Amino acid sequence: MDKDMQEVLKKAEVLVEALPYIQKLNKKVIVVKYGGSAMSNPDLQRSVITDVTLLKLVGFKPIIVHGGGKAISNWVSKVGKEAEFVNGLRVTDEETMEIAEMVLGRVNKQLVSMVQELGVNSIGISGKDSGLLHVTKKYSDGKDIGFVGEVDKVDPKILFDMMDRDYIPIVAPIGFDDNFDTYNINADDAACAIAKAVGADKLAFLTDIEGVYRDIKDPTTFISNLTCSEADALIAGGNIGGGMLPKLTNCTNAIREGVKRVHILDGRIPHCLLLEIFTNKGVGTMFMPDHDNVELGA
Amino acid sequence: MDKDMQEVLKKAEVLVEALPYIQKLNKKVIVVKYGGSAMSNPDLQRSVITDVTLLKLVGFKPIIVHGGGKAISNWVSKVGKEAEFVNGLRVTDEETMEIAEMVLGRVNKQLVSMVQELGVNSIGISGKDSGLLHVTKKYSDGKDIGFVGEVDKVDPKILFDMMDRDYIPIVAPIGFDDNFDTYNINADDAACAIAKAVGADKLAFLTDIEGVYRDIKDPTTFISNLTCSEADALIAGGNIGGGMLPKLTNCTNAIREGVKRVHILDGRIPHCLLLEIFTNKGVGTMFMPDHDNVELGA
Amino acid sequence: MDKDMQEVLKKAEVLVEALPYIQKLNKKVIVVKYGGSAMSNPDLQRSVITDVTLLKLVGFKPIIVHGGGKAISNWVSKVGKEAEFVNGLRVTDEETMEIAEMVLGRVNKQLVSMVQELGVNSIGISGKDSGLLHVTKKYSDGKDIGFVGEVDKVDPKILFDMMDRDYIPIVAPIGFDDNFDTYNINADDAACAIAKAVGADKLAFLTDIEGVYRDIKDPTTFISNLTCSEADALIAGGNIGGGMLPKLTNCTNAIREGVKRVHILDGRIPHCLLLEIFTNKGVGTMFMPDHDNVELGA
Amino acid sequence: MDKDMQEVLKKAEVLVEALPYIQKLNKKVIVVKYGGSAMSNPDLQRSVITDVTLLKLVGFKPIIVHGGGKAISNWVSKVGKEAEFVNGLRVTDEETMEIAEMVLGRVNKQLVSMVQELGVNSIGISGKDSGLLHVTKKYSDGKDIGFVGEVDKVDPKILFDMMDRDYIPIVAPIGFDDNFDTYNINADDAACAIAKAVGADKLAFLTDIEGVYRDIKDPTTFISNLTCSEADALIAGGNIGGGMLPKLTNCTNAIREGVKRVHILDGRIPHCLLLEIFTNKGVGTMFMPDHDNVELGA
Amino acid sequence: MDKDMQEVLKKAEVLVEALPYIQKLNKKVIVVKYGGSAMSNPDLQRSVITDVTLLKLVGFKPIIVHGGGKAISNWVSKVGKEAEFVNGLRVTDEETMEIAEMVLGRVNKQLVSMVQELGVNSIGISGKDSGLLHVTKKYSDGKDIGFVGEVDKVDPKILFDMMDRDYIPIVAPIGFDDNFDTYNINADDAACAIAKAVGADKLAFLTDIEGVYRDIKDPTTFISNLTCSEADALIAGGNIGGGMLPKLTNCTNAIREGVKRVHILDGRIPHCLLLEIFTNKGVGTMFMPDHDNVELGA
Amino acid sequence: MDKDMQEVLKKAEVLVEALPYIQKLNKKVIVVKYGGSAMSNPDLQRSVITDVTLLKLVGFKPIIVHGGGKAISNWVSKVGKEAEFVNGLRVTDEETMEIAEMVLGRVNKQLVSMVQELGVNSIGISGKDSGLLHVTKKYSDGKDIGFVGEVDKVDPKILFDMMDRDYIPIVAPIGFDDNFDTYNINADDAACAIAKAVGADKLAFLTDIEGVYRDIKDPTTFISNLTCSEADALIAGGNIGGGMLPKLTNCTNAIREGVKRVHILDGRIPHCLLLEIFTNKGVGTMFMPDHDNVELGA
Repeated sequence: MDKDMQEVLKKAEVLVEALPYIQKLNKKVIVVKYGGSAMSNPDLQRSVITDVTLLKLVGFKPIIVHGGGKAISNWVSKVGKEAEFVNGLRVTDEETMEIAEMVLGRVNKQLVSMVQELGVNSIGISGKDSGLLHVTKKYSDGKDIGFVGEVDKVDPKILFDMMDRDYIPIVAPIGFDDNFDTYNINADDAACAIAKAVGADKLAFLTDIEGVYRDIKDPTTFISNLTCSEADALIAGGNIGGGMLPKLTNCTNAIREGVKRVHILDGRIPHCLLLEIFTNKGVGTMFMPDHDNVELGA
Repeated sequence: MDKDMQEVLKKAEVLVEALPYIQKLNKKVIVVKYGGSAMSNPDLQRSVITDVTLLKLVGFKPIIVHGGGKAISNWVSKVGKEAEFVNGLRVTDEETMEIAEMVLGRVNKQLVSMVQELGVNSIGISGKDSGLLHVTKKYSDGKDIGFVGEVDKVDPKILFDMMDRDYIPIVAPIGFDDNFDTYNINADDAACAIAKAVGADKLAFLTDIEGVYRDIKDPTTFISNLTCSEADALIAGGNIGGGMLPKLTNCTNAIREGVKRVHILDGRIPHCLLLEIFTNKGVGTMFMPDHDNVELGA
Repeated sequence: MDKDMQEVLKKAEVLVEALPYIQKLNKKVIVVKYGGSAMSNPDLQRSVITDVTLLKLVGFKPIIVHGGGKAISNWVSKVGKEAEFVNGLRVTDEETMEIAEMVLGRVNKQLVSMVQELGVNSIGISGKDSGLLHVTKKYSDGKDIGFVGEVDKVDPKILFDMMDRDYIPIVAPIGFDDNFDTYNINADDAACAIAKAVGADKLAFLTDIEGVYRDIKDPTTFISNLTCSEADALIAGGNIGGGMLPKLTNCTNAIREGVKRVHILDGRIPHCLLLEIFTNKGVGTMFMPDHDNVELGA
Repeated sequence: MDKDMQEVLKKAEVLVEALPYIQKLNKKVIVVKYGGSAMSNPDLQRSVITDVTLLKLVGFKPIIVHGGGKAISNWVSKVGKEAEFVNGLRVTDEETMEIAEMVLGRVNKQLVSMVQELGVNSIGISGKDSGLLHVTKKYSDGKDIGFVGEVDKVDPKILFDMMDRDYIPIVAPIGFDDNFDTYNINADDAACAIAKAVGADKLAFLTDIEGVYRDIKDPTTFISNLTCSEADALIAGGNIGGGMLPKLTNCTNAIREGVKRVHILDGRIPHCLLLEIFTNKGVGTMFMPDHDNVELGA
Repeated sequence: MDKDMQEVLKKAEVLVEALPYIQKLNKKVIVVKYGGSAMSNPDLQRSVITDVTLLKLVGFKPIIVHGGGKAISNWVSKVGKEAEFVNGLRVTDEETMEIAEMVLGRVNKQLVSMVQELGVNSIGISGKDSGLLHVTKKYSDGKDIGFVGEVDKVDPKILFDMMDRDYIPIVAPIGFDDNFDTYNINADDAACAIAKAVGADKLAFLTDIEGVYRDIKDPTTFISNLTCSEADALIAGGNIGGGMLPKLTNCTNAIREGVKRVHILDGRIPHCLLLEIFTNKGVGTMFMPDHDNVELGA
Repeated sequence: MDKDMQEVLKKAEVLVEALPYIQKLNKKVIVVKYGGSAMSNPDLQRSVITDVTLLKLVGFKPIIVHGGGKAISNWVSKVGKEAEFVNGLRVTDEETMEIAEMVLGRVNKQLVSMVQELGVNSIGISGKDSGLLHVTKKYSDGKDIGFVGEVDKVDPKILFDMMDRDYIPIVAPIGFDDNFDTYNINADDAACAIAKAVGADKLAFLTDIEGVYRDIKDPTTFISNLTCSEADALIAGGNIGGGMLPKLTNCTNAIREGVKRVHILDGRIPHCLLLEIFTNKGVGTMFMPDHDNVELGA
């Protein structure tokens, strides 16, 4: 057998290796929170969208929830406003909300087009479509920070309808309150709320970190899997830094409300989704229920 | 019978009067091009959305196609750009296209929220979602006017899927070309292309005029119904002013490609849609095929 | 705006006013007991049938249960028999039963034709079709009154099948016993039994009275809404006259077995059904469960 | 093997003998015109209903079309009217029509009850239900004979809907005209029109004759099978007596419009339907297309 | 009426007599264990297959489970092996298992062809198809007897799928263990396991005996019906011979796990299945639950 | 990035590379003729079954048609018969046919078990099940060669039913004639007949050769793609050796009757199916229609 053929045969082996994973997750729902570097770098962008499309084609049902990243700030400054944050939350006056909705809407359709370009149908929606994300106004330590909302009710009908008809839903984190006013929602929170509402099998956060470390300063303490209780202990131990805390809480919350596996993935690695799902080489930290054994990639 | 009751009885009569119209248009598809004053005036806005929602509830399948109106120009000037037009078409450079997509996206979700508020489910999409509106670049007398597209292929699958599941689709007139670049589309043209692609029974343009006059200067020459041939003759006669010409052409094209009835309605009249459909008092001009008799409001 | 147009606009307002009611009762089942003046007066007849047809067209699922009124007595006397009543119940010997079944059968098909004439499909059945209404023989104070039956088992399959396929079922109050003998059933009782068996959202009795009065002699004591407990109290108070008593018991029974709202309507008012359902002007007395708030007309 | 067992074994053989016939007619539609002696004799009545029910249970889809027989005349005379006939057609003034509809309605429900008693669901309808039988007024040699109609349009939707849901439809030969007035229809004609409209595989007339004879006076000339052309020749030969003529014309018409087999059966023989369908011993005359071979009982 | 006709009429009566049984077992699942003389005698073979096919045609859902009978032994000796039995169980080394699977596979397809020949569709499968019969290795008094398996898990999906699409499933008693090795299963046990897994209404064993006797030496003690408790008592009484014991245990087990009726039939009587189901003359012993009354043949 | 990760990333790239092929063949039917070395070598066996299972999991609908290979000859000699061939066709007397059916039946279930072991449902059938493969007796130059059949009618219902319910059908090449006698069928012919009957998108022959050469003696003349006309020319040119001729004829026949692509693959290369479908490195010769452009692997 010539060398060329050996090369090709290796490829076949990779596909065969993927077989049990494909089998396992067939028709399973995966919510992907898409943001950070994976969003700003065009190569990574394409790699994420390719991964999600492939997942769809081999039988999964993916939902993308995306943020708006720096584009919102860019547009805010473009109209001469100063971006203002309180405890990491963007103070969102009416004009800022208008800009945020516009920018997120455009990002949303850009992602739709990228999926379409790969030959798969997708629909871009916000949490206002079909009443998907209902919110209540959020205060930061009692301070009014404007149109920032906290999801308190999800109506997932639209997502099921779209997945039934084989679309990939792409969701912008915008919600509405009882007065049908528009609110900004933290994208991590939106992804988490949606994953719980649809009973997702998997929720994956594409982040700019490698995952969770027992001791952030010691690279040898990287954690590949941890249960809810272990995560609680970690938090209680005080080793989890500020920015990481809400992420971890989201992860354990999601698991506790029925999501089977939650992943913090390093979105800076190309194809991190495929790697996580189709190989034994995990590329981040996986959260799971206390009473459940670690199975192949699931 | 007291006077109060008489009042109420009159109301019942109105409902009863609507019965044959309801029967007639049951499960029929109606495309509503929404723009002009009906869009800028909040009261008219609410009246249009109410009408469309009512149509949905009594059995029709409405689709809304909207424009962006003045909001685009406002935002263009907000960022210090000069709006530029050639032959009535907005010259659309990359930045303008970005703004247009953002503004239309926001308008789109506002309309969605208004429908949701009335208790009916809707989804807001653009022509990029699920590959709805494919375009080719349009030139104005050979002049490059940027990202202005002409619809050359409609994939209505997403509209049927949404109507099947009882959503009101609301469409922003944005399209994509072979390179998946984003293009602005004239909203009238988009509505027309969609009406033809879904085989609509009715296409209604909400405009800022009363309808078509045989002689624009003579109010007694108002035309309530006209066939394609009559419209052709009118155009040939040279009596149709510049702004009116493309509208009429759109109307006759739509009829010729299978839309059963096309209406130019006066969007400045509250509930003009209901009036047109449920009463004998037409409120605009209706176009119909040459060989087809004028039936009750259909 | 000219006066003509103002008139038309008022009509649109009426339709818009109906919107929340249409929304509310969509796909809900309404059983209408049809009898009394509304049956003998041709104008009222047409008004009732029109109302029911309109309800069907805007999304409800109506079932009509009718009586035979005076036609039975007419035919009984036509063949030289004396009509005989015991405690308000017709003594029904074999020949009378034969006549009753024949007359009710014809009335049934007349109503079917009236609905058909309005362009909606209906099927006329009796309680013998597909085993709808099974009865046991009824005695009046121990006295044998012939073929008068009491419904003791309803098999609603035929009604669901017909409503699924978009027919309006019209039911004659005839039943069968274990020997498959034919029995007359009081139409109020039949309507009540059917409403309970199909889990109706609404049961409306078209009667020749205005509704329930706290004191029948004092017109100011008219009752628009009352709960089951209130009705019980009223009965216990001894203020309810003889003819009214069984009607009230039927109403409270129906509510207690799951029908959401029961109405005693004044069938002498044209379009009393539409008025009750689509306007705030109630036209009779509405019964509701004890623990349930009064909502808009529902 | 004892004699008792031999007896039982013979029974099994009969069932086995029926197997190819059951197979052949599975899910086929059979229209049975039910009238004559088979209707007035209670034993024959039960035998016909049993046969039809058995056919349903082993997989056929039967439809019964019945006449009213002598009951109509009885009731006409009961109210002191003289029955009047022109060319064998009952002169049907308004009162006679009323009586006919009432009597047929009652017969209809009696048949329904007999089927129900055997444990199978049926629905009794007339040609007015769901617009089944539309007629035009019929004249006899130019003479007005009242409400006697000729079927000119059949809407079989209701029959298909009922057969889909496993009911046996039982049809009274009553129709309606453009004014929704009620008309009497000859039951043979009604059966024939229905058989054609539903594309029946078989149409069986239960009659009071043995079948067709080449020479009515010579019992050896009985005809078991004949093609349309042969029937035409027979008619042309002038050997077919007056009462027989319309029957034969109905038979050949039905075949020519697509009914596969038409049978004139002797309804005075118990279980003539079963005998015709399940054994080689035909019990009447079978009509078939010219180009089609005689198959087992089909 | 001539004698010929009387003969034919008797046939009709037999069909009519079958009506209540057909009605009763409509869409019911019947598992038939097919073996013994009924399998080796070609006439009986045809009679059994005819019966099952007829049952299918009149509305039942039969499943056949067959043995391999003497054919396995024949082939074992053909290749020069000695058949070896321990406690009535065939010692099954690898080569014997191979032969058994081959022989059963061929018998399976022969039965399929016989059903096809009668015009009904069937599929022949073994317990390995779609994972139908999972086994664990069976030991006989601790002795290794090779590839003899005991069913411990049934996945009936394939049977439901086939019955849904109107096939008669024919099952060879072959299973697989955790290593996907092939095992022989006793056909009675396989039939019993399948009947329980599909919730069969009836399980019929075609045997070479007449049924159960209270005292095997006294023909007058034949038992037509017995409850589980009565069977237990019989076993406890020590009157049941060796070969009979596992059969009886299978019967009572099946009843206890939900099969409604279990029959031991005399497969040497032609059409014993039809006789049992369609006549009052039972041809074997029927087992039933303790608290259930003996109904007509069910 | 460490070396380990680079390795893993390469794997992701392979999956991504497969994406357009997966997309292209989604829900397409692939008939795989399985025989030769790929059948006798256990490793290759596992590789073929793995490939087919993977194809199923990523969305294709595969059907396997297998031969019996040497196992039949082994068993023929085991019972002391001499295998006899005429023109390459096995002379098949009754005993040989019996052995062939038994052996093929067992091979069939072995393949089923291998698929089941990989977690996918499959059903093993022969051409006798549900009347799949009807044959006429085949003669070799007029010589009677026993039960060798030529497929003349395929009833693919069973295949569609099984694929609908997500089973992989595995077919043994056994057929039946008008007398329901059993016949051996050449497996290539059976695969070809099935591919045509189900309208397969692809038919792949796993063989023991590399593919087609323009000049069998010159390795540089290997042909990767060829159209029907080119194949005809090749045959006409006399360059195709004896054993190859019927294979080529099968290929061009299949293409001419609607199969989109036919492949002669080298079954000795592990995963040749995956390689052919998911990579640009073809591993055999592909036949295609004359008027159709060569697309990616399709």
